[in-house]
Amino acid sequence: MTATPIPFEAAAAAVGNLDDGAGRAAAEHHDRLTKPRGSLGRVEGLGVRLAAITGASPPPLPAPAAVAVFAGDHGVVAEGVTPWPQDVTAQMVQNFLAGGAAINVLARQTGARVIVVDVGVATELDAAPGLARQKVRAGTGNIAREPAMTVAEARQALDVGAAVAARLVDDGAACLVTGDMGIGNTTPSAALVAAFTGRAAREVTGRGTGIDDPTLARKIAAVEAALARTPRRDDPVAVLASLGGLEIAALTGFVVGGAAARVPVVVDGVIAGAALLTAAQLVPGVVPFCFAGHLSTEPAARAVLDTLGLAPILDLELRLGEGTGACLALPVLEAAARILGEMATFDAAGVTDKPD
Amino acid sequence: MTATPIPFEAAAAAVGNLDDGAGRAAAEHHDRLTKPRGSLGRVEGLGVRLAAITGASPPPLPAPAAVAVFAGDHGVVAEGVTPWPQDVTAQMVQNFLAGGAAINVLARQTGARVIVVDVGVATELDAAPGLARQKVRAGTGNIAREPAMTVAEARQALDVGAAVAARLVDDGAACLVTGDMGIGNTTPSAALVAAFTGRAAREVTGRGTGIDDPTLARKIAAVEAALARTPRRDDPVAVLASLGGLEIAALTGFVVGGAAARVPVVVDGVIAGAALLTAAQLVPGVVPFCFAGHLSTEPAARAVLDTLGLAPILDLELRLGEGTGACLALPVLEAAARILGEMATFDAAGVTDKPD
Repeated sequence: MTATPIPFEAAAAAVGNLDDGAGRAAAEHHDRLTKPRGSLGRVEGLGVRLAAITGASPPPLPAPAAVAVFAGDHGVVAEGVTPWPQDVTAQMVQNFLAGGAAINVLARQTGARVIVVDVGVATELDAAPGLARQKVRAGTGNIAREPAMTVAEARQALDVGAAVAARLVDDGAACLVTGDMGIGNTTPSAALVAAFTGRAAREVTGRGTGIDDPTLARKIAAVEAALARTPRRDDPVAVLASLGGLEIAALTGFVVGGAAARVPVVVDGVIAGAALLTAAQLVPGVVPFCFAGHLSTEPAARAVLDTLGLAPILDLELRLGEGTGACLALPVLEAAARILGEMATFDAAGVTDKPD
Repeated sequence: MTATPIPFEAAAAAVGNLDDGAGRAAAEHHDRLTKPRGSLGRVEGLGVRLAAITGASPPPLPAPAAVAVFAGDHGVVAEGVTPWPQDVTAQMVQNFLAGGAAINVLARQTGARVIVVDVGVATELDAAPGLARQKVRAGTGNIAREPAMTVAEARQALDVGAAVAARLVDDGAACLVTGDMGIGNTTPSAALVAAFTGRAAREVTGRGTGIDDPTLARKIAAVEAALARTPRRDDPVAVLASLGGLEIAALTGFVVGGAAARVPVVVDGVIAGAALLTAAQLVPGVVPFCFAGHLSTEPAARAVLDTLGLAPILDLELRLGEGTGACLALPVLEAAARILGEMATFDAAGVTDKPD
């Protein structure tokens, strides 16, 4: 952890603007490379934004990346919003630490490291390599009936996330990837997205990793009850504390920490999307430092991207979480940087440019 | 080159069925892995198909891959269908050989090799490492007025492509990627797609790498003239010879050669799409061995994928060609194989599965 006493507030204050000069330089360089102008489509825009984030054209490779999987439990599972037992959160943490989960496989492929941060798992977890024990509380309250956490706990979780981002960048990460684990966590995500976008619960509440119609009905009812309990929307930290979860609060801090460090932050699906939307309420300048790795099938994910004006890199109908969709998108982002750094120009290659 | 005297016909005869047993085994294995069933969306289907192609579950990694960039020139440039001078085809071949083009950058990133095959460049090319000199003729005829090539030349180009595929697999490629270079080659591609799908020229003719309205009007007129000259559609090789181009004919053979060798073939944009559509007329069984790397912005690309029932892996608004979109998709395909090969099962990881 960094020595900063209040990591989140410090990070929030440190978030700057994109470097438009570096972005322009990258866009101009694109037009000198041996390809028809604009022919690499959205890959060109990704490269321009990497330059503007890092302040360099060509931009450094967004590698190595680091995936932080924030784990927490959710009292709202008492409402029957998911068929998965709550114990699976802790079991999956062990699976991450053993390297057997999908996020481990995808991270290994791209040379990214994975750390797991226990910010709110219901049970005690033993110390283990790769596990940061930063538990703020043992699971949230049941948001259908009570606040997820206190405002003080929300601030503590924001600090945990911001500090993890700072530490990973200090340790050499050139790109941060949001990861999450928490049985039931699409429910608070839907609640936060509804609260911050004004959409109805039924519009943003989906089937998560896969639930039947009666479970979906209970889930929508839980989100509606949580929203009814949370009338004020003008204090984002209060909304976050009311609707949770602990890993979403930590991810909110993580996104802000990454933007403060001027590294690209690749955001996964609906859980990270809810965190990014929360972060955008607190520090609007974070958004251009973030890339949407993919479009999750969960309806709140699209609501977040539409609201923030982000286009997903991939659209592969994923609904796993853990950071998997963000990790799958890393090679495209790396390609965007390599194109700017490695391609020949028309002049250097002796290729005739198209006449104007 | 292999010693086979008639590579294309031999390859066509060797194309078999998918191994449904291996595909089923992969699908069943997916359901034992520590993730909600189906939660990796389309990545799961890619893995199942890799298993069915290769006959093994888990499938071998589709790596290393090999990109074959088939290069040819097009007499139809005389109709003013592109602002680029024809010399750029040969200049870009030199750029490929020097490693400075977009396809070189993207191939290096994924560890794929690139070979360039001159099957029809208008000028003579000196021998060089990485260049296969297999010129069938020095550019096609102007398809608005005359056949692109003779049927014998089309068959020769089909042989070149099939032989290149066989050689790359013999040399260790576990995945083939289609590449192309040829100033003007979206025009014959549009003509072939129109011929084989019955769509009108104006529906499938696009702006290629970027042309203005008058150029587009000339391009549509050229496609219409080419189609008017080509009344019979029941002999695919005759249609291919009439509409060209030489690199498209070679790519047609390449796709068939890859399917015959039971390796996944990742197809790039509209040029490769026209070749795949031609291959599908000749050997319908090739299609399930192919993956659509991306959705090009060129309208004929979507027409091909819709006709063949293929969903693109990426949709990044690329319109460069060279194999760039296919190469960008390779990490997703590799991830699909790694997930099946490396993830822990519920039993092995001690994770509780969702109750049925």
